[in-house]
Amino acid sequence: MGSPKLPALSGISRRSALLTFAGTFAAASLARYAKAQAQTPSTPLASWNDGPTKQAVLDFIRATTDQTSKDFVAPEDRIATFDQDGTLWVEHPLYSQALFALDRVHELAPQHPEWQDQEPFKAVLSNDMASVAHFTEGEWAEIIFLTHAGMSQGAFQEIAKQWLATAKHPRFKRLYTDLTYQPMHEVMDYLRANGFKTYIVSGFGQDFMRVYSQRVYGIPPEQVIGSSLTTKYEIENGKPELMRMPKLFFNCNFDGKVIGIDLFIGKRPYASIGNSTGDRQMLEWAGAGSGARLKMLVYHDDPVREYAYGPAGGLPDTKVGTFDQSLMDEAKSRGWAVISMKNDWKRVFTFE
Amino acid sequence: MGSPKLPALSGISRRSALLTFAGTFAAASLARYAKAQAQTPSTPLASWNDGPTKQAVLDFIRATTDQTSKDFVAPEDRIATFDQDGTLWVEHPLYSQALFALDRVHELAPQHPEWQDQEPFKAVLSNDMASVAHFTEGEWAEIIFLTHAGMSQGAFQEIAKQWLATAKHPRFKRLYTDLTYQPMHEVMDYLRANGFKTYIVSGFGQDFMRVYSQRVYGIPPEQVIGSSLTTKYEIENGKPELMRMPKLFFNCNFDGKVIGIDLFIGKRPYASIGNSTGDRQMLEWAGAGSGARLKMLVYHDDPVREYAYGPAGGLPDTKVGTFDQSLMDEAKSRGWAVISMKNDWKRVFTFE
Repeated sequence: MGSPKLPALSGISRRSALLTFAGTFAAASLARYAKAQAQTPSTPLASWNDGPTKQAVLDFIRATTDQTSKDFVAPEDRIATFDQDGTLWVEHPLYSQALFALDRVHELAPQHPEWQDQEPFKAVLSNDMASVAHFTEGEWAEIIFLTHAGMSQGAFQEIAKQWLATAKHPRFKRLYTDLTYQPMHEVMDYLRANGFKTYIVSGFGQDFMRVYSQRVYGIPPEQVIGSSLTTKYEIENGKPELMRMPKLFFNCNFDGKVIGIDLFIGKRPYASIGNSTGDRQMLEWAGAGSGARLKMLVYHDDPVREYAYGPAGGLPDTKVGTFDQSLMDEAKSRGWAVISMKNDWKRVFTFE
Repeated sequence: MGSPKLPALSGISRRSALLTFAGTFAAASLARYAKAQAQTPSTPLASWNDGPTKQAVLDFIRATTDQTSKDFVAPEDRIATFDQDGTLWVEHPLYSQALFALDRVHELAPQHPEWQDQEPFKAVLSNDMASVAHFTEGEWAEIIFLTHAGMSQGAFQEIAKQWLATAKHPRFKRLYTDLTYQPMHEVMDYLRANGFKTYIVSGFGQDFMRVYSQRVYGIPPEQVIGSSLTTKYEIENGKPELMRMPKLFFNCNFDGKVIGIDLFIGKRPYASIGNSTGDRQMLEWAGAGSGARLKMLVYHDDPVREYAYGPAGGLPDTKVGTFDQSLMDEAKSRGWAVISMKNDWKRVFTFE
């Protein structure tokens, strides 16, 4: 937790701004989507400096798509999986969806006067970010269940969409969906141009990410694998609805990422890219397959353009900010390519 | 259960035939796959008789893909979901995967001498199909857990593949994968030729179906949604494996089909086709969307070419053979097209 004094971005005060933003947001979305569709990487990996990391990507593509290569992969088996937070977009000072949940607590507080004296809500409502930083998994679960459940799937995604259209990052003062890494877009584009199907595999909420995955990453909802709540089929006034229940259905982190990949895809990825201990098993799984496999770890070592905290621990320990040496050791012993943001990337963000 | 005297297809006696079959099977698979890839429906729905049912499919395609149509659907939203058993292939006299499980009991029996006196295994081993026909959900679960778990995903799929390459249907004397309905292949082909992504959504085992879905239906594993067991990530001798546990993870039947569709795809299907009460909610879910939606129910009314048992109850009641009037009533009240095998299909099977 790098920024203990993170201001709580109360959603209440933003309500009136929603309509104003909506139009701009829609226009920007369409433009970005059109761009994503048309993009042909004539100069692949343009934002990457030459070196062994960039070369690992180029070598992998050649090895798996050149018909004469011994490691040629049939098009239908070309699967690539990407972690999201810290791999495709910024996860500092706190994961976006955690911030969304905290904002939801502020927004729902008027309907829950009891929260003023009840932890973990009290800490959130009093902007006690030092306490928030030490929330246990159980406390986060309580917050998630009360802010993410008790409504239909459609209603939830509408709320998420509105938050994403307005909430801004405390340092970069931009929408979270703007804080994606240009070099990773180029890797996804290059893989797709070579017949790979790109997936997001994240410990965060599948339904949250599916709101923007197509627009932001060019990845359709059905290629987003994440954690999920139990849903219940109900018929109200003759109309069926899927209601979100306050119960975890699937935890897509650590070994859950491998389980999720097998469950949703049923094929072992040829490329897996992550940045934290939550991605360890996913990289191991890709690496255990035969032939050429691309395993990469994003190393946050650029305090000027982004943050420097190394390969990081994952939820529930919320060890963002903690350099995880064991992951670096495993990367070395298993031959995973380590991406230095500072040295490998000419440009970090898409907006630069 | 239309055929209480179904002979148990003991896998043990077939063991020696496996190698003989394997070569033929591989050749046939490649030929079929190539055909599936090349198929362009110049005369769509050629095996369908003209009439309102065929017309419903033609009208739906025109309404959703003609740019000038008020019901035009963006290509990325073109999702079609199909039940498998009784919709894409024969489910009589017993579901293929249930037969696979019974054969596995025979095959594993030498390692479990206690099964000779222990139900439900005793009934299976003594070929007491009248008892098998009345197995409870709990008894089937016991059989599934003992025959489908306790091994890696890869090992299970190898066993399923071998069974599918040898086991034959008692009436048609053909591999189960040969008993698919030609008219439904044509609907899938026609939908795909018009930009629809076709999915199987079945109460049966996802990992079982994924063994043959590409080859038989032209549907890749990642578009097969079914029931699944809990899996566990384990590292053995430095190599990660996903082990199958004797515990249900997801039951993809009835309302589970809608939950599965939302979980895996995150989009509401524009077309849903089924044949039993297990498909009721999936058809309701597609039908509750706006615009043109294709909802179809396969009505088994052809005792000469296939079977006559109407729209059927689903597992766990195993009401195959029981005409379900409530489903016909719902089809009528909600405007689902009912496919009469006898009257709508010129040809039933691909092998005819």
